[in-house]
Amino acid sequence: MSIEIIFGQQLRKIREENKLSQEELAFRAKLDRTYISLLERGKRRPTLNTIFALTQQLNISAAEMVRLVEEQVLNFHH
Amino acid sequence: MSIEIIFGQQLRKIREENKLSQEELAFRAKLDRTYISLLERGKRRPTLNTIFALTQQLNISAAEMVRLVEEQVLNFHH
Repeated sequence: MSIEIIFGQQLRKIREENKLSQEELAFRAKLDRTYISLLERGKRRPTLNTIFALTQQLNISAAEMVRLVEEQVLNFHH
Repeated sequence: MSIEIIFGQQLRKIREENKLSQEELAFRAKLDRTYISLLERGKRRPTLNTIFALTQQLNISAAEMVRLVEEQVLNFHH
């Protein structure tokens, strides 16, 4: 499973835990709603800047978000 | 100071600590040497995939790399 798929799943999970719609998250993070949707479906590769913009609205640090993704990437490959 | 500038400085520091040239890191991470140079100068925004590819060659986790960048971003803005 690719990094962007795992990131997308994690993003959706955390967004839903924060009870935010894609629209609301997009507005707060100053991104397009369509882009959030593409990210959550693993169709775009997030830049570090995007990860910072998103996590600042999701009560999670960028480092913790990356840690969660990394944990799954490593589990998947080993 | 922007996220990409801080990332670039951190990348150079960790690459030098690992005693790797830009050429050697590029070869190992399957990236262009020019791209590594642009990243280190803060001229490109790394994707999460690029951060994984780089950190796997630098004896540091992607999460720890992002944590170091985040620490400096937060220090700078507060």
